[in-house]
Amino acid sequence: MAGSVDAVGHERASLRTAGIIAVGTELLTPDRIDTNSLHLTAQLNSIGIDVVFKSVAGDDEAQLSDEIAHALARCDVLVTSGGLGPTSDDVTRDAVARALGLPLEEDPDLLARIRERFERRGLAMPEINRRQAAVVRGARVLPNPNGTAPGQWIETGSRVVVLLPGPPRELEPMFDQHVKPALANRSGGRMVRRRVIRVAGLPESRVEELAHPAYAPLASGRVPVATTILASPGIIELHLSVRGDAHDELDRALQAGVEAVARAVGPAVFSIDGRTLEQVVGDRLLERGWFVATAESCTGGLVAARLTSVPGSSGWFRGGTVAYDNRVKLSALDVAPNLLSEHGAVSEPVAEAMADGVRRRLAADVGVAITGIAGPTGGSPEKPIGTVVIAVSVAESTVARTHRLPGDRQLVRQHSVVLALDAVRRAVQPDPTK
Amino acid sequence: MAGSVDAVGHERASLRTAGIIAVGTELLTPDRIDTNSLHLTAQLNSIGIDVVFKSVAGDDEAQLSDEIAHALARCDVLVTSGGLGPTSDDVTRDAVARALGLPLEEDPDLLARIRERFERRGLAMPEINRRQAAVVRGARVLPNPNGTAPGQWIETGSRVVVLLPGPPRELEPMFDQHVKPALANRSGGRMVRRRVIRVAGLPESRVEELAHPAYAPLASGRVPVATTILASPGIIELHLSVRGDAHDELDRALQAGVEAVARAVGPAVFSIDGRTLEQVVGDRLLERGWFVATAESCTGGLVAARLTSVPGSSGWFRGGTVAYDNRVKLSALDVAPNLLSEHGAVSEPVAEAMADGVRRRLAADVGVAITGIAGPTGGSPEKPIGTVVIAVSVAESTVARTHRLPGDRQLVRQHSVVLALDAVRRAVQPDPTK
Repeated sequence: MAGSVDAVGHERASLRTAGIIAVGTELLTPDRIDTNSLHLTAQLNSIGIDVVFKSVAGDDEAQLSDEIAHALARCDVLVTSGGLGPTSDDVTRDAVARALGLPLEEDPDLLARIRERFERRGLAMPEINRRQAAVVRGARVLPNPNGTAPGQWIETGSRVVVLLPGPPRELEPMFDQHVKPALANRSGGRMVRRRVIRVAGLPESRVEELAHPAYAPLASGRVPVATTILASPGIIELHLSVRGDAHDELDRALQAGVEAVARAVGPAVFSIDGRTLEQVVGDRLLERGWFVATAESCTGGLVAARLTSVPGSSGWFRGGTVAYDNRVKLSALDVAPNLLSEHGAVSEPVAEAMADGVRRRLAADVGVAITGIAGPTGGSPEKPIGTVVIAVSVAESTVARTHRLPGDRQLVRQHSVVLALDAVRRAVQPDPTK
Repeated sequence: MAGSVDAVGHERASLRTAGIIAVGTELLTPDRIDTNSLHLTAQLNSIGIDVVFKSVAGDDEAQLSDEIAHALARCDVLVTSGGLGPTSDDVTRDAVARALGLPLEEDPDLLARIRERFERRGLAMPEINRRQAAVVRGARVLPNPNGTAPGQWIETGSRVVVLLPGPPRELEPMFDQHVKPALANRSGGRMVRRRVIRVAGLPESRVEELAHPAYAPLASGRVPVATTILASPGIIELHLSVRGDAHDELDRALQAGVEAVARAVGPAVFSIDGRTLEQVVGDRLLERGWFVATAESCTGGLVAARLTSVPGSSGWFRGGTVAYDNRVKLSALDVAPNLLSEHGAVSEPVAEAMADGVRRRLAADVGVAITGIAGPTGGSPEKPIGTVVIAVSVAESTVARTHRLPGDRQLVRQHSVVLALDAVRRAVQPDPTK
């Protein structure tokens, strides 16, 4: 383990792992969520410190103290947020002192500053705010220009405990200005870099099968590359990360890893640079100078909504038709009535006619159509719930494909959106002349 | 502590406290957050079980096992989410088995069901999915109709450990259908009841002003009713809750509270029974036997997508047009060219023409149109980013209103959807003859 030598000659182990405890009974209700940890994680990662766990604890001193003691056994840096206010349910100071076996002491300078803060606003400090001047013995006080609750920085053996206030507008500047630089000095120059490979149209287990031979050896390479797989309806993500202190070497190892895994998975990979599927579709259309139009039945506008979520989509998205009612398929998309009566609304001939129809009607270069049975009703033995047909029409070529998707209405719709976007992506190959 | 006597005569302590562990290294990155715990907390609270801590652990079997052991000392019910997939970084099964000192065993029935699930979709089960048939000895398997990862229910002494899959669409029905009823039997009759009052079209501070005189006295009534206000773009929610074991009394106090607060806020309240805005709109249309059609510019299909998210929306939603390009406004919605050139696309005359046009073209009873500037570009001094015009056309009456919405592209779009849905709600008053 790398280390540094401090002013009095002690070697200090470098800080590599962090834990985060958000304190507050309100964060244990159905309506609130701790988001401070996202900011803290981003900042910690950027200086090479991994967050290895996080938790939420209520305003109970004994339980919080127990949680802090347990946490300290598992990380080099423990960051708490919240519970530094003046009231009796603000118990973080007491809990930390108890967990570390150290007393709380009133800091006279701090008390004076808190008092002064009130006086500047023409108020007398309520006696209750005296609690906020209590400091764990040996702690360094972190100033809080945005509130009365100061933070604390405590060294305990080779570990660091940092107490931050709960409100984001107090916590974020305090961490960024006072805590992060001090931790960076002690993290041995390490950093973490991440890249995401995004894959559409393959099930998770198939992606795993394809990717495993490529990513498994990376984990034990000279610069180890860690891989995590994440699945959402229709999209699988492979998250690759490296950590260490030789920055150029890390970047090279990560780039090589991303390329190897992407190659192994093949053409279902649509992004290795952070772009979403809709951004990739937009970029390909823009490159060709083409416009797309959408004809949606079961997705009810979701494909158009996803495309138009991309800023600048007016440069490649013409518009769309939500043809929920069969009459709209006839009147707005020129689907021939006999196609509907012979094949039914959820069929490849109808999907192809919808894609053609919307492309012509809206004067687009590419038409994409989605028709299907999202449920909860409407299924039949031949066409069960989850049957979705997607068609893409480009110039004279129209291709339809039938899918059977698992899950409920919402899942079928979300999955269909991804398949439709991916069908457009595949139909709009990059222009080979560029 | 209250208790119950089970079939073999053992007295069982009632379950009062729960802990939640979300498993997944990706949940320890700056980009992901565990939201399953919010659903679980709401459901646990509703049967009188308080959540006393929650935590997020990475995909490390030893660390997770340690976290589980620590958690079990602090709660009656431990719920885990995630880590039940087929890959080698899905370690929850192994970690729970290790923490409880029990072996994992392959369940042949479960294996057959997983295999069958693949075969129904015409696929062979990848060998890797075999891991998902591993069950902690003595566990009851919880079926997962929405995915391959089954859940597990394990009794250990007086405690219960529940393993749930990570995807919300799998976790939520599994918990609600299989876990919640079983826990409710064991929670000693305590309960928490919540009701939500939903308000559209008023800012949070105005809702607070109107509601405060009504809800403030409720907090100190004989059955105290607690109130929380939550804001999202365009919608304010007032959450009222009561807790205790005298169920009838609680229900009466809650009902009286909901009525008093809803009355104080007035006609901007659109729901006191849990229905969403799109459900209320659909119910009102259905009651009248009317159909709606949508014409969207800046929302790009989001309004249609929200309406069609409601099962049965084919009974009152005809279809829609996403008129992103001005040419589509002319060709598909019959907007007169001079309206566009004289007033611009984001104007009340154009919005009115769009609403009329889509109503006529799609043979609907109600047309709603949204045109606006969502950003990040396209604003001007007269029409800054956030300018959104919403028009509703019902028979011969068409009304448009211009809004100035705060925030970025995504926020403006979301807020616009709510305003459009609420405009339809207000235009479709309940039929007084029914």
